[in-house]
Amino acid sequence: MAVSAKIHGFMEQGGWIRKMFEMGIALKEQYGEENVFDLSLGNPVVEPPEEFHQELLRLAENPIKGMHRYMPNNGYPGTRQAVADGLKTETGMAFTAADIVMTCGAAAAINVVLKTILNPGQEVIILSPYFVEYGYYIDNHGGTAVIVATDESFQPDLKAIEGAINERTRAIIINSPNNPSGVVYPRELLAALGELLAHSEKKHGGEIYLISDEPYRRIIYDGLSYPQVFPHHLNTIVVNSHAKDLALPGERIGYMAVNPDCPDKAELADGLTFCNRMLGFVNAPALMQHVVRALQGVTVNPLDYQRKRDFLYSRLTQMGYTVTHPQGAFYLFPESPVDDDVAFVDALQNWNVLTVPGRGFGTPGYFRISYCVEDKVLEGAMYGFAKAAEEFGLQGAHSD
Amino acid sequence: MAVSAKIHGFMEQGGWIRKMFEMGIALKEQYGEENVFDLSLGNPVVEPPEEFHQELLRLAENPIKGMHRYMPNNGYPGTRQAVADGLKTETGMAFTAADIVMTCGAAAAINVVLKTILNPGQEVIILSPYFVEYGYYIDNHGGTAVIVATDESFQPDLKAIEGAINERTRAIIINSPNNPSGVVYPRELLAALGELLAHSEKKHGGEIYLISDEPYRRIIYDGLSYPQVFPHHLNTIVVNSHAKDLALPGERIGYMAVNPDCPDKAELADGLTFCNRMLGFVNAPALMQHVVRALQGVTVNPLDYQRKRDFLYSRLTQMGYTVTHPQGAFYLFPESPVDDDVAFVDALQNWNVLTVPGRGFGTPGYFRISYCVEDKVLEGAMYGFAKAAEEFGLQGAHSD
Repeated sequence: MAVSAKIHGFMEQGGWIRKMFEMGIALKEQYGEENVFDLSLGNPVVEPPEEFHQELLRLAENPIKGMHRYMPNNGYPGTRQAVADGLKTETGMAFTAADIVMTCGAAAAINVVLKTILNPGQEVIILSPYFVEYGYYIDNHGGTAVIVATDESFQPDLKAIEGAINERTRAIIINSPNNPSGVVYPRELLAALGELLAHSEKKHGGEIYLISDEPYRRIIYDGLSYPQVFPHHLNTIVVNSHAKDLALPGERIGYMAVNPDCPDKAELADGLTFCNRMLGFVNAPALMQHVVRALQGVTVNPLDYQRKRDFLYSRLTQMGYTVTHPQGAFYLFPESPVDDDVAFVDALQNWNVLTVPGRGFGTPGYFRISYCVEDKVLEGAMYGFAKAAEEFGLQGAHSD
Repeated sequence: MAVSAKIHGFMEQGGWIRKMFEMGIALKEQYGEENVFDLSLGNPVVEPPEEFHQELLRLAENPIKGMHRYMPNNGYPGTRQAVADGLKTETGMAFTAADIVMTCGAAAAINVVLKTILNPGQEVIILSPYFVEYGYYIDNHGGTAVIVATDESFQPDLKAIEGAINERTRAIIINSPNNPSGVVYPRELLAALGELLAHSEKKHGGEIYLISDEPYRRIIYDGLSYPQVFPHHLNTIVVNSHAKDLALPGERIGYMAVNPDCPDKAELADGLTFCNRMLGFVNAPALMQHVVRALQGVTVNPLDYQRKRDFLYSRLTQMGYTVTHPQGAFYLFPESPVDDDVAFVDALQNWNVLTVPGRGFGTPGYFRISYCVEDKVLEGAMYGFAKAAEEFGLQGAHSD
């Protein structure tokens, strides 16, 4: 066989998001692009902020000698300093450039963190619903994923997490604002989670890392200020990317930040830098490191997304859908009107509306809507949502 | 411990190139930058070709809508087509865009290939002297590196390779022009290697992939035309980057190309695309994919490097050093005048000349000189080389 047996198996399982992506292409060919309402992908249609274009143009017009060469594997000191300064402002904590490693996006960062910390047989807790690739990332580096369900509001269930922690537990990955549920974890909950982890570290005699995946940190609504994760656990590593806040998902630019109060922060940062190299990332793309240095305070306007959320949430709840009100990211995770979420997603697809079944996130019985699309796509999808609501007998459903 | 036991061990061993890099920083601080002659790194000081700057400027001035978004994980169809067209011209073989996967450089590509093909317990042959990180890459994906020495001219030793092949052999990595020796593998040798691999595949009943790491393919001298690897083995995957030919090592842009005549090429390309995503690379940086699309025929001028090689080779041989005459890349790999290459590299360091001991490439008794530096650095290093030659009693040595 050309590919390994394991990879062959993974590819057979496919991935729901990829399946919907391919289905989207087929439907668009059949019905025309404007008649297919693709809400399956987290690929923002917004363009990067004007400041990004200006900075890129400035660098293209005034190239710096050596600006495309290798730099230290952890990134340019100036870029790391800019990220540290930004985090200092956001958290009030004493970040320095030494706490930052620039990476090829957040997916790279999570892989690098797991490679750095995992010993064979160790476990990583992930909370369902979860970004399905976490499972691959953990497997890549010899770890075992332990899935713990969130509560009915998609918030971490501390009792359940406590029950899952044992002497093999090496890390827990959290993601707030959350993909796919859109919920933001409140400060009190993070504080309690931090206490639980510190207590468990003492009990089992080893570090339990809190890996906080924060690409949606700046995409929050209702005037909320982001409840920071860092202050609540010493062994915290934040991974981030500029895929969403600067709308640069294709550029693969992000970072890892180690808690400045972490007792082993120097060894940890050295390990992350080493693994960034040995996994073949080597360093984050040079030009984008130059560009984002000046843009740490810049972000796309979350009010655009908030408006889309408001439209979608109010229309869907009117139709009778049950939806947790999300306060960030650009996803809605409604209950499927029937237990079989794949059957419901298929029904929506008959109306040319593409979504992803909840089992693609380890949580059957729900489906994910991505609303980082143009308004006309959201508006166009409403007819299909209404027809499907009617078909499955939702209270309040009427499709006229 | 903050990092895993294995990573801790790897970091303790360090890496010679990294050690010399850090030593360079310390010496430059002590003696001043202009008094340290750092020949330890493959970080070209040449700037990218003018066509690169023009293309980057054109894109920065005329942004394409959506040009920073996600694209398919194997890259933009137009960029893959451009790479396929270039390979078609170079090899005369029928490449299509479907045979190409864009990657975050060649280090990423090798990791993706190994992840895709390796089953647990399988072996990968590498030829010493070799780029030391190959060992990490193989270990990353559960493989075992089997090291086979090259012959006295640093050419692959087919008898030795044949002796190393068994039913667990899954791949062999070759690198021509070679880092660290600078030698180019001739056509006849590649043909014989291809025959050996095909014969071994039949004997053991499984694919043996020829992974050809070709970042220096365009950096060849003496009017040589590159002896292509593809025509000699069906199960060939070429990995490449634009780090050297376009002088963009910091940008992490490269590709994998599957032999268009490979019977399983579709499954293989799908597997490579899948693993590109699951390892967290996701896709090659979008902007660089746009830029290099138009630059597949462009390369830095190899004559600059040839001139540096000529200078260095003639001066060192005059001093009595024994050096294989290299026909590509930008490295020289002379014999150490004493068996202990680390002692000799230390002696050179006393003259503020930084090189890398051969044991950093699995081949003690030699040392590597990287000459992708400014002429004045090469010229400045001559005094130290002469003094060290004298110190170790080389015939012809005189340091005046």
